[in-house]
Amino acid sequence: MSSQPNILTGLKVLDLTRALAGPSCTRMFAEMGADVIKVEAGPGGDMVRGMSKIGNERSLYLVQQSLNKKSVCVDFHNPEGLALVKELVAHVDVVVENYKPGVMANMGMSYEELKKIKSDIIMCSISALGQTGPLSSKPGYDYIAQAYSGVTSMIGDPNEAPYIPCVGLGDISTGVTASVGVLAALRYRDQTGKGQHVDIGLLDVYYQYHEVNVHQASASKGAIKPTRTGRHVSYVAPAGVFQGNDGCAMIMGFLHHWKDLCASMERPDLLDHEIYGNDAKRLEHRDEVIEIIETWLKGFPSVHDAVAKMEEHGVPCAPILTVEETINHPHFRERGTVRTVDDPIAGKFDMPGHPIRFSDFPDDPGYVAPTLGQHNQEVLSEVLGKSKEEIDALASKGILIEGPN
Amino acid sequence: MSSQPNILTGLKVLDLTRALAGPSCTRMFAEMGADVIKVEAGPGGDMVRGMSKIGNERSLYLVQQSLNKKSVCVDFHNPEGLALVKELVAHVDVVVENYKPGVMANMGMSYEELKKIKSDIIMCSISALGQTGPLSSKPGYDYIAQAYSGVTSMIGDPNEAPYIPCVGLGDISTGVTASVGVLAALRYRDQTGKGQHVDIGLLDVYYQYHEVNVHQASASKGAIKPTRTGRHVSYVAPAGVFQGNDGCAMIMGFLHHWKDLCASMERPDLLDHEIYGNDAKRLEHRDEVIEIIETWLKGFPSVHDAVAKMEEHGVPCAPILTVEETINHPHFRERGTVRTVDDPIAGKFDMPGHPIRFSDFPDDPGYVAPTLGQHNQEVLSEVLGKSKEEIDALASKGILIEGPN
Repeated sequence: MSSQPNILTGLKVLDLTRALAGPSCTRMFAEMGADVIKVEAGPGGDMVRGMSKIGNERSLYLVQQSLNKKSVCVDFHNPEGLALVKELVAHVDVVVENYKPGVMANMGMSYEELKKIKSDIIMCSISALGQTGPLSSKPGYDYIAQAYSGVTSMIGDPNEAPYIPCVGLGDISTGVTASVGVLAALRYRDQTGKGQHVDIGLLDVYYQYHEVNVHQASASKGAIKPTRTGRHVSYVAPAGVFQGNDGCAMIMGFLHHWKDLCASMERPDLLDHEIYGNDAKRLEHRDEVIEIIETWLKGFPSVHDAVAKMEEHGVPCAPILTVEETINHPHFRERGTVRTVDDPIAGKFDMPGHPIRFSDFPDDPGYVAPTLGQHNQEVLSEVLGKSKEEIDALASKGILIEGPN
Repeated sequence: MSSQPNILTGLKVLDLTRALAGPSCTRMFAEMGADVIKVEAGPGGDMVRGMSKIGNERSLYLVQQSLNKKSVCVDFHNPEGLALVKELVAHVDVVVENYKPGVMANMGMSYEELKKIKSDIIMCSISALGQTGPLSSKPGYDYIAQAYSGVTSMIGDPNEAPYIPCVGLGDISTGVTASVGVLAALRYRDQTGKGQHVDIGLLDVYYQYHEVNVHQASASKGAIKPTRTGRHVSYVAPAGVFQGNDGCAMIMGFLHHWKDLCASMERPDLLDHEIYGNDAKRLEHRDEVIEIIETWLKGFPSVHDAVAKMEEHGVPCAPILTVEETINHPHFRERGTVRTVDDPIAGKFDMPGHPIRFSDFPDDPGYVAPTLGQHNQEVLSEVLGKSKEEIDALASKGILIEGPN
């Protein structure tokens, strides 16, 4: 843990999360300098410690989600272990958990129980489908919530089965949304002395990503049936994914951008054209418009050259980068969108930067991630005031656990 | 605006945003009870006032993003109009804007200028590619940032061009992430008296959705080349989208879930099977596994029946709902994932609920969205202390503007 001050220095969070959604919430706090105690269930700890082991058996998955977190590993099945977790509640501002709804209550750690330990505690529960409602007890994965939300139905070709995005966007953005709830509740607590239970479901987070679909289906009384429209948006043209020789480009050439795209293509004839010069008709004849643009695009050896040409004329456009292409991209490096972590076990590797930039704090304070149970001693001694003898006894009974990575 | 107290009651936000990413940030504050003054540039105001006009010329797009916001509409091109905006800065905690980088400075409202008006101001700037770096001046749309981030490259079939999700997830989740930065900065200001400039780019937000792709490409030194893998995840099987008779199902039947899926399919033979009973071999023979499951799935008239069958056996699964199917789904209704807004102009329609649930506050306080310039008089009088004569003079000069919806 870095000792440099950061924007949330002093905030204390008890982190009972694992996998991705929960840890993405506590990652926001840890990367902003809060004191986050990640309590992992022994013997193996967070399940992701077995994932993305590239380099000295270290889980890069764990590292990416755990910079500046402290790790305490206890046996949850042992009452003494569980008692330690509950003892920690008295010393923190916030408890975050992402167990299946009901599991915290079964462990004697419902919000009501936590309030008895600390009356103004803020508890944040993250789940797939929420703490309430008939589906709440379903087992949760990101894609399950995404399927229910209608978001999956909006990805792909309308005549084929939909596709799933191969990124953890539901889990991660749910964790971020949870941190909004916690920070709002903290503000309220600081002003009133009252705690709060914050309930966050992936389903609700995914559902609000429908910026138009829900209200259009509802207000049109079913006349509008929102569905996926392939590689192009449905309401203006051209706007979407265009195939070039060595990859694809995203091009937004609609409305006032059409004249700039025509200039890029050196096709003034398309600007005054009876069909292509008209916004509505261009949408009706979208397939032809796409063909014109892709034919032009394929005249370049690389989409990057075509993008450079379009940029000269101010067309909003981008190469569709592969992940590999992003990693050493000058913009990503200069801005810290990608950062190099120097992990004590795995060594140096690149991962995404923290998505928030503050004017008065460094973008990358050089935090490191903990090994399993690395802070057992520190936390039990400094936070709970246990003696070395007590801690050693807990370790020898297998209630406190440490791992090599 | 509701007068019921809510979790952020008392917080004052000056909202200079339009379109989707910026308004999604200030929506978080408004729906949690903050006093959000949305300043719109005359004559037409926020461009989205022209979008999703279904019912009495009211923009449902605007309503969805603007519940509990106040609208003040001024002519930004008139120095007196711009002066009013600057005057408001002195009376708020936070200013949020999503102009193209540089535009605020051109209007004399850089962070340095705002600090001269209010020394502890928190300014939040939202843009596509961030305030810094060689790409920062590019024109920004959600899909442009998505293309650069490598996220688009992770959606679709690996042998074809990628697809774009037809939902506003980049813009909206960027707005949510921005609200995290603002709330953290507020906590810091309350403790130290110091303001902050928060810089949020869609690119950075999208990029952190790569939970494994970036570190795997980096640490494997290019041996792992992350790309889209279609309708199924790449590392376990079966897990993904399966085609049924009347739609698709999301099924997670890997590892310990496989036995439950075999039980659902009444195929104990697949559990002890030399190939299908083995996790690694099932992944190698994924296409065959998909065919077995889809053949079984098509034995049901509806995927909903198959999902019910799998649920009996505890298989994580879901119907892939269309947006229409979500709207009257009992879980969505009971939980408030969908809510009915009673808009004074458009009447009743459904839209997504606020994604955060607090134990001590109602999920839906019944907020309404403002008409253009509805709060001109109220804000200028109550916040800036202008007289009725002054306000009338500004209106008659066209500096203050009101619209019917």
